[in-house]
Amino acid sequence: MKKIFYLLLFSCAFTFAQANRVEPPFWWSGMHNPELQIMFYGKNIAQYQPVCDGVVINNVIKTENPNYVFVTIDTKGLPSGELVFDFKNIKNKTAFSQKYMLKERKEEASQKNSFDASDVIYLLMPDRFANGNPDNDTSKELNEKADRSQPNGRHGGDIEGIIKNLDYLEELGVTAIWSTPLCEDNDKGYSYHGYAQSDVYRIDPRYGSNEDYVRLSSELKKRDMKLIMDYVTNHWGAEHWMYKDLPSYNWIHQFPGYSQSNYRMTTQFDPNASQTDARQCMDGWFVPSMPDLDQSNPLVLNYLTQNAIWWIEYADLDGFRVDTYSYNDKEGIAKWTKAITDEYPDFNIVGEVWMHDQAQMAYWQKDSKIAAIQSYNSYLPSVMDFTLHDAIGGVFNEDHSGWDAGMQRVYDNFTNDFLYPNVNSILVFMENHDTGRFNEIYKGDLNKYKMALTLIATVRGIPQIYYGSEIGMAGDKGKGDADIRRDFPGGWNGDSNNAFTKSGRTAQQQQFFEFTSKMLNWRKNKDVIHNGKTTHYLPDNNVYVYFRHNTKESVMVVMNNSSETRTFSTARFTENIKNYTTGTDVITGKKVNLANEISMEPKSVMVLELK
Amino acid sequence: MKKIFYLLLFSCAFTFAQANRVEPPFWWSGMHNPELQIMFYGKNIAQYQPVCDGVVINNVIKTENPNYVFVTIDTKGLPSGELVFDFKNIKNKTAFSQKYMLKERKEEASQKNSFDASDVIYLLMPDRFANGNPDNDTSKELNEKADRSQPNGRHGGDIEGIIKNLDYLEELGVTAIWSTPLCEDNDKGYSYHGYAQSDVYRIDPRYGSNEDYVRLSSELKKRDMKLIMDYVTNHWGAEHWMYKDLPSYNWIHQFPGYSQSNYRMTTQFDPNASQTDARQCMDGWFVPSMPDLDQSNPLVLNYLTQNAIWWIEYADLDGFRVDTYSYNDKEGIAKWTKAITDEYPDFNIVGEVWMHDQAQMAYWQKDSKIAAIQSYNSYLPSVMDFTLHDAIGGVFNEDHSGWDAGMQRVYDNFTNDFLYPNVNSILVFMENHDTGRFNEIYKGDLNKYKMALTLIATVRGIPQIYYGSEIGMAGDKGKGDADIRRDFPGGWNGDSNNAFTKSGRTAQQQQFFEFTSKMLNWRKNKDVIHNGKTTHYLPDNNVYVYFRHNTKESVMVVMNNSSETRTFSTARFTENIKNYTTGTDVITGKKVNLANEISMEPKSVMVLELK
Repeated sequence: MKKIFYLLLFSCAFTFAQANRVEPPFWWSGMHNPELQIMFYGKNIAQYQPVCDGVVINNVIKTENPNYVFVTIDTKGLPSGELVFDFKNIKNKTAFSQKYMLKERKEEASQKNSFDASDVIYLLMPDRFANGNPDNDTSKELNEKADRSQPNGRHGGDIEGIIKNLDYLEELGVTAIWSTPLCEDNDKGYSYHGYAQSDVYRIDPRYGSNEDYVRLSSELKKRDMKLIMDYVTNHWGAEHWMYKDLPSYNWIHQFPGYSQSNYRMTTQFDPNASQTDARQCMDGWFVPSMPDLDQSNPLVLNYLTQNAIWWIEYADLDGFRVDTYSYNDKEGIAKWTKAITDEYPDFNIVGEVWMHDQAQMAYWQKDSKIAAIQSYNSYLPSVMDFTLHDAIGGVFNEDHSGWDAGMQRVYDNFTNDFLYPNVNSILVFMENHDTGRFNEIYKGDLNKYKMALTLIATVRGIPQIYYGSEIGMAGDKGKGDADIRRDFPGGWNGDSNNAFTKSGRTAQQQQFFEFTSKMLNWRKNKDVIHNGKTTHYLPDNNVYVYFRHNTKESVMVVMNNSSETRTFSTARFTENIKNYTTGTDVITGKKVNLANEISMEPKSVMVLELK
Repeated sequence: MKKIFYLLLFSCAFTFAQANRVEPPFWWSGMHNPELQIMFYGKNIAQYQPVCDGVVINNVIKTENPNYVFVTIDTKGLPSGELVFDFKNIKNKTAFSQKYMLKERKEEASQKNSFDASDVIYLLMPDRFANGNPDNDTSKELNEKADRSQPNGRHGGDIEGIIKNLDYLEELGVTAIWSTPLCEDNDKGYSYHGYAQSDVYRIDPRYGSNEDYVRLSSELKKRDMKLIMDYVTNHWGAEHWMYKDLPSYNWIHQFPGYSQSNYRMTTQFDPNASQTDARQCMDGWFVPSMPDLDQSNPLVLNYLTQNAIWWIEYADLDGFRVDTYSYNDKEGIAKWTKAITDEYPDFNIVGEVWMHDQAQMAYWQKDSKIAAIQSYNSYLPSVMDFTLHDAIGGVFNEDHSGWDAGMQRVYDNFTNDFLYPNVNSILVFMENHDTGRFNEIYKGDLNKYKMALTLIATVRGIPQIYYGSEIGMAGDKGKGDADIRRDFPGGWNGDSNNAFTKSGRTAQQQQFFEFTSKMLNWRKNKDVIHNGKTTHYLPDNNVYVYFRHNTKESVMVVMNNSSETRTFSTARFTENIKNYTTGTDVITGKKVNLANEISMEPKSVMVLELK
């Protein structure tokens, strides 16, 4: 009997004695946090004990699934180079060995210049932006094949398409790209959005390779542009290889059975909320195809943290956008964020905190005094100004401004700025890939677009624009997500309209592009916009006036959102106009005498540099 | 020449040598703050120097108006009794003397039991509640005469009318009265509201005398009921005697000329607000008939503080409601509030902070962490839940609850409770004297009234109801303030309908009264409602369920705001139902088995005491 047992063991070891996956696939020496937890995955690998000559193993964790071993080593003082892990069997014999590479870090890799208010972020969906390499539209090993005729199908856009159009983006004046997720999403259908990832260490082959992603990063750097990765901590896709062989039951939230989030994020801080509602929000799944990760599980948290750091270091990233930030385990996501910013102190991370109340959004920003009421600190450097987005979605159709209509709603949004610990680190945007498109809501009205773009380009915070709007693209959220995620015209061979080039644009597209490009390029070096103080005045008759100013410069923005010409005295603005006598409009070059009355066409905007 | 001068001086002194007004008219020995600043007013009184034998005079302040002298004395150790101030002329001769009384304090006068969440406040307008003494409807010395035929005129209600109906109020179940201002308002018209006061040391004779006010206070105390004074720090009326002979130009805000407030209270904390807008809000006048006091002027501030303390001590008050709290000079009003609560540590003051954002309202409550961001502390113990009021004004007509409709809006209001430093000290109300009446908005629908009254009677905070609604009174704000301030039926001799007595009420009035009285009387001794914790559940299909609970008791409130019968399982509420098996409805006495499903009629509410 004993003999048979050993025979079985031996044959088993012989047959399966290897790690099929090792994650992170490699690491670096000299990281701020010397601890590294390597996950070895292989059939029954937990029966072996790993040792590594010359390396301190802090702990070895095995879970209820024998196919996983988590080995935490201390890399402090370890030089770069190859490590060898020997997996010992019960008789202390090496059943197999596994090499592991500690690479050398790039110089000053931890001193990142991340994105900030001096940037303008261009949000694109890679499947819908440009198809630079038609050969990778479909991958044999992955489920969903390209079919551009399907609105919800994969259309073939890829990393090569982004790289090929960097000239366009540079001319447009954006300085950073936020692409929706590029890691493998092997869902059988509706996989193009990439939020149901199946392998978070691998770029989806239909977008390109890991090396292509690194190339995108370095091509951007050559142009002084930045790359922001869309990171998903909250969930994976149901096709994730680990979901199919979970390390432990509690790796994901199980109720048991599927249980959907109630999406009521207020339960995360509401002292009156029932525990059942709070749990449902946080632990419930977003959709059935997205298993909800339990970030309160230290192994899960560590896996996500190391994966995030791995991408930053590997692809020289300039920032993260974090999906559904406030749906994560609250303590877990704070630890994740802190670990990353401990490693890269200047690395910016913007979280999707989709709420409709400034106090609730401010709660999630690093060092929030509001969160401190509950002794919480998310460590999240940036949040998104969803209340400004809410206002932008309606005000430009409000020709009259009452107590709380028209530009008053925009003004009101900024009155709560003191609630934010860092008001310059808030994303300002008129739309994104989950909302109605501005040019649909406003029926392609260029004047309204000009007002909105000027607004997000000149108020405090980090402007983010959404691909295509700069050429007037529309899209109706009411018709489904596909309509707000149409293909960028010119991104595919044979597209009859190529909006990437001036000659290919329609006259209307060119008008949108020209304005956007002028505004964003002007903004690039305007420290007064990036870091200046704001002073705004109560809208009068739907005319909103605000100044961005520092000790050296002053910019006066005037927006007439009424449907009539408005003429007004500048006397009200003396405290900002001071001794300046003239303003030059950034858009038209027109000079305005500040001693006189100012007259503004209906639905128009001026950005005056004061002299 | 010199001779003539002395002659003039002498004749002058001889003719006018007296104080026509001394304020405060008397004071008390043994106050916490020993400093007392007495204002002497008389023609050219500033030419004399006051001395007072045996009393330390800390300072004597004269203003640009020679008719005022402000004398600050140290009362520390002074026994009660009469002081004599001698006013010396330039030759150090006593030109005249002025007696001043330091009274003895009532025992434990500083240890007030003020209003709190165990109370229900009844807000009434004295001119419109009941005319107890028809002889004082008109006063010879005051401008506006009674004319009940005029909606905006004076109708004759008075303090006697309140006293005569205390039985009614006690039966109703309210425990505190907040009457709109009773001090003299000598405006030529539209004076009945009392917010344009002309003498803040005197009860308007058309309401009664100072002694009548004291009698009201003591009659209330006999019934264990409380008196809350409506105090106005922000402005006086244009008929105020001091406004007609201002101590100094900067006693009030002058621009010069009339300048109206922009009413944008956000400018008080908005870091982006222009100084001109902020000043306009704070210093601008409410209306032309209400000169705006400058509380940053220490003499003004002291005058207002002492006047407030004088009333508390004199009339044995149980609290203040402060008008337009957030329109005052921000630092000044904090000092005023602190001075009062330093004198009476348990004295409650609720400020009218009429905003539509919880963070902005919470800003104004004592020890607010939000205000602390700007190093501000108002010291104001209580604020008003205007956002709950906003919701109540609409939700009961919202038969379906979507993402943010129906009971969800009520639920949402409480999700921000953590922003308030003291959530039990927030006034909850469905209406007041400045808003539309509930029974007008909801067309007298008793079921909706029952839901709203139950809501404010069972959620955290201090319920406040508005006179007349308890018998179904309606009133349309759209028609002007008079319509929401109609006479209480039965308050005037000869009223055909007398709702003060059961026999006099119509059947409909009786239904409203009975429900209100039952609910409020039940609430009186329910510590679990006054101080218990709240746990609420996400509304499901417009059914809102919440629990008030402490270690001893648990009350389950169930509100079906849909227009259909709803039946639901209690399984969701296990964390609160625990081992309780039965709930007894406070209103109907009906027993509900908590193990079964609960079925609720459309637009209905139950308040279950769990056993």
